[in-house]
Amino acid sequence: MGRLTHIDEHGDAHMVDVGDKPITERVAVAEGWIALGAEAFDAVVERRAAKGDVLATAQLAGIQGAKRTSDLIPLCHPLPLSGVDVVLEPEPSSRRILVRATARAHWRTGVEMEALTAVSAALLTVYDMLKAVDRGMELGGVRLVAKRGGRSGTWTRDHGG
Amino acid sequence: MGRLTHIDEHGDAHMVDVGDKPITERVAVAEGWIALGAEAFDAVVERRAAKGDVLATAQLAGIQGAKRTSDLIPLCHPLPLSGVDVVLEPEPSSRRILVRATARAHWRTGVEMEALTAVSAALLTVYDMLKAVDRGMELGGVRLVAKRGGRSGTWTRDHGG
Amino acid sequence: MGRLTHIDEHGDAHMVDVGDKPITERVAVAEGWIALGAEAFDAVVERRAAKGDVLATAQLAGIQGAKRTSDLIPLCHPLPLSGVDVVLEPEPSSRRILVRATARAHWRTGVEMEALTAVSAALLTVYDMLKAVDRGMELGGVRLVAKRGGRSGTWTRDHGG
Amino acid sequence: MGRLTHIDEHGDAHMVDVGDKPITERVAVAEGWIALGAEAFDAVVERRAAKGDVLATAQLAGIQGAKRTSDLIPLCHPLPLSGVDVVLEPEPSSRRILVRATARAHWRTGVEMEALTAVSAALLTVYDMLKAVDRGMELGGVRLVAKRGGRSGTWTRDHGG
Amino acid sequence: MGRLTHIDEHGDAHMVDVGDKPITERVAVAEGWIALGAEAFDAVVERRAAKGDVLATAQLAGIQGAKRTSDLIPLCHPLPLSGVDVVLEPEPSSRRILVRATARAHWRTGVEMEALTAVSAALLTVYDMLKAVDRGMELGGVRLVAKRGGRSGTWTRDHGG
Amino acid sequence: MGRLTHIDEHGDAHMVDVGDKPITERVAVAEGWIALGAEAFDAVVERRAAKGDVLATAQLAGIQGAKRTSDLIPLCHPLPLSGVDVVLEPEPSSRRILVRATARAHWRTGVEMEALTAVSAALLTVYDMLKAVDRGMELGGVRLVAKRGGRSGTWTRDHGG
Repeated sequence: MGRLTHIDEHGDAHMVDVGDKPITERVAVAEGWIALGAEAFDAVVERRAAKGDVLATAQLAGIQGAKRTSDLIPLCHPLPLSGVDVVLEPEPSSRRILVRATARAHWRTGVEMEALTAVSAALLTVYDMLKAVDRGMELGGVRLVAKRGGRSGTWTRDHGG
Repeated sequence: MGRLTHIDEHGDAHMVDVGDKPITERVAVAEGWIALGAEAFDAVVERRAAKGDVLATAQLAGIQGAKRTSDLIPLCHPLPLSGVDVVLEPEPSSRRILVRATARAHWRTGVEMEALTAVSAALLTVYDMLKAVDRGMELGGVRLVAKRGGRSGTWTRDHGG
Repeated sequence: MGRLTHIDEHGDAHMVDVGDKPITERVAVAEGWIALGAEAFDAVVERRAAKGDVLATAQLAGIQGAKRTSDLIPLCHPLPLSGVDVVLEPEPSSRRILVRATARAHWRTGVEMEALTAVSAALLTVYDMLKAVDRGMELGGVRLVAKRGGRSGTWTRDHGG
Repeated sequence: MGRLTHIDEHGDAHMVDVGDKPITERVAVAEGWIALGAEAFDAVVERRAAKGDVLATAQLAGIQGAKRTSDLIPLCHPLPLSGVDVVLEPEPSSRRILVRATARAHWRTGVEMEALTAVSAALLTVYDMLKAVDRGMELGGVRLVAKRGGRSGTWTRDHGG
Repeated sequence: MGRLTHIDEHGDAHMVDVGDKPITERVAVAEGWIALGAEAFDAVVERRAAKGDVLATAQLAGIQGAKRTSDLIPLCHPLPLSGVDVVLEPEPSSRRILVRATARAHWRTGVEMEALTAVSAALLTVYDMLKAVDRGMELGGVRLVAKRGGRSGTWTRDHGG
Repeated sequence: MGRLTHIDEHGDAHMVDVGDKPITERVAVAEGWIALGAEAFDAVVERRAAKGDVLATAQLAGIQGAKRTSDLIPLCHPLPLSGVDVVLEPEPSSRRILVRATARAHWRTGVEMEALTAVSAALLTVYDMLKAVDRGMELGGVRLVAKRGGRSGTWTRDHGG
């Protein structure tokens, strides 16, 4: 059975000691979406054809958000990211903006939180830039797609356990 | 029709000048959830009966996240929050942890982003604290419930438009 | 009797809503000391005669620390400081460096935490700059000296209650 | 004659008390440039025709940099910016990228440092994004163009004193 | 004799080059206390029996404070912490809350400052949460208990030199 | 020909994956100046003779600025600096303050941005501390002097290519 590794034997929260873990290549991919109303969705798509500012701003916010993960998540280890990619794609059939983030590091801990934080920061930024048009937008589907490296090895959503 | 207020006439991103807006009382309420597997859900509930650390940590992360909103969202105005509440509630029927955040300020801009950021930070923290047990958790339903104050007045999800 | 204002009726932590409090002039003065060994104390005093770098660095760290208070203290409100002074004085008879910090703001909440954080950051910086000489230094006497403004009015250590 | 307002009567640095200053509308405009080699300049211009990423990234960095001014400049007051604009323009005749930033606040202190920090952050970001092509780029001409509001009133570079 | 390693040969402050130091396992333990009045002390103890929020919040603040050490201490090196533990314990006989923090890293520099900053942030947070009840609280006894690793090897308070 | 390494094949910004690069010793030296009016320059020089606060404050701001580089530059990798030196020197013949910063790290990426950010933060701090005396100051000549380490090896301004 899994353990609540952030909780020590006395039930107190702590930042788990990872000093014994080997440094390996870590990769994590996360995804999420924001559902827009018709007006907001068209605004993004039309802007993107011209200059793409909503998506470009959200993409940068995602990358920068990954770098702030240990600031935002209390028990998360600071770690030196070696790379972050954030991709946003409008999906007309659902009027959603899809976000996918990949985080990488050579380190003792995984980068799942960095990938998930990147997705969240990108989605919140889309909301911020469109909220004058549409306050009813919803963020969802924020989840890990896959991770690689570390003691627990490779995990993918389809074959997880 | 709404406007993309973060995009100026040349299509460039900017931080909108709100200097002309009056200072009024602003309140925003946002919500979201994280869906857990059975083992992770039980872990939260049992811990909470004893000491409640996962939920207490996520609650603080939400409050602190609200204070970092303008750091995380590129075009968001910094503003002096006058209060933040974050409440987490496990929902056994769905095995979800529900989060609701309320942000308040007397200021020229709304606090929707602060409430949504609080929800996101709290949910990401729940994920972080349970990821050794369950990597398949999903965050969703992150959305504004209501907001009050400012030129656009009161908006509630049920009666929005 | 006082109340634990950061704990709401359900026992959860929250950032107290101060939106109803009037904006008044707030001042708080805090103090503290660090006790040094003979070698470290002489190093500070002799450097100070020449260039004063330990004390000058600690002073800046105190001012900057005051600006980070709401980052460091989870339930502390962010507020726009209008002024911070930090003074450090070596006291040869006790081989201590005394620190006194004054924080000011026109705001709805007091600035006690800003003054106390300034003192702590200054003292920690003295430790950092001298730790190669002396690891046994001790910080103490960190406390509020006086505060003015707000509903609770003026408080001074000698006449507190 | 002017005074070194950050230095108090004992010669120590402090964060000047601005509590007595009235809240007025403050605007500051600053500018600067980065000089590129031919290859780097062409890369910017060609990218911009297609997607404009170097300039868009630098623009966001400038806006975000303005929000971090009091973090970066030790004795600078934190203040609630009401708006920031950053504009970048390639100048083919000189192979320079010109940056102009405007910062605004209703506050007790001026926003010159916010405008200058925005310019610097934008220029550094251009350097960062092009340094694989050209390490010899130079940043210069970073200066205040005009400021308005506060006790000292309006100042413009051409009619300054 | 020790050296003021943060001061170079010209008397200027600098961030010491540690590039030549080997990466070894570093551990540091620090402690401190805050002395409370009777009402405040009882409030903590009674709350802790029920939900323990003051101590739980202070504990998290300590862990997060350790992660911000190089932000707060000007000449302190940024380093990737591998673990942080913060324990708070009320001591009824003295009406003090005792704090003990352990910081760990595999790095070129020691983690004394991280442990001391964790203690200070935890103590300041206790003050913040109780200040409506008691403004006269005092923080003291903040000091290194032991450290291990690095060129200077193991140091403990009792056998220090 | 060089590549815009921050731009991927689809023209989107990303934080380049440096996971494959070896860890080597990296050093970068950057320089810059701020040109002052006669009154401001004399103020610096005379203060320095007495206490040197403008220069000492700017020096610390430069060191701290280097530590914030990846916060300020969106696509810049976070990295654990092993050392930073910042030197400021008044040049009477030109009434300029010259700044030179050296950054060092054992890492996969270069530290050019850290050195340039240190120079910029130091120069902005000089401006901030003298702006009450002189608003017409100009920052310029901010550029890389030399860098060492990494795949591209040693580069110096005089022999660059």
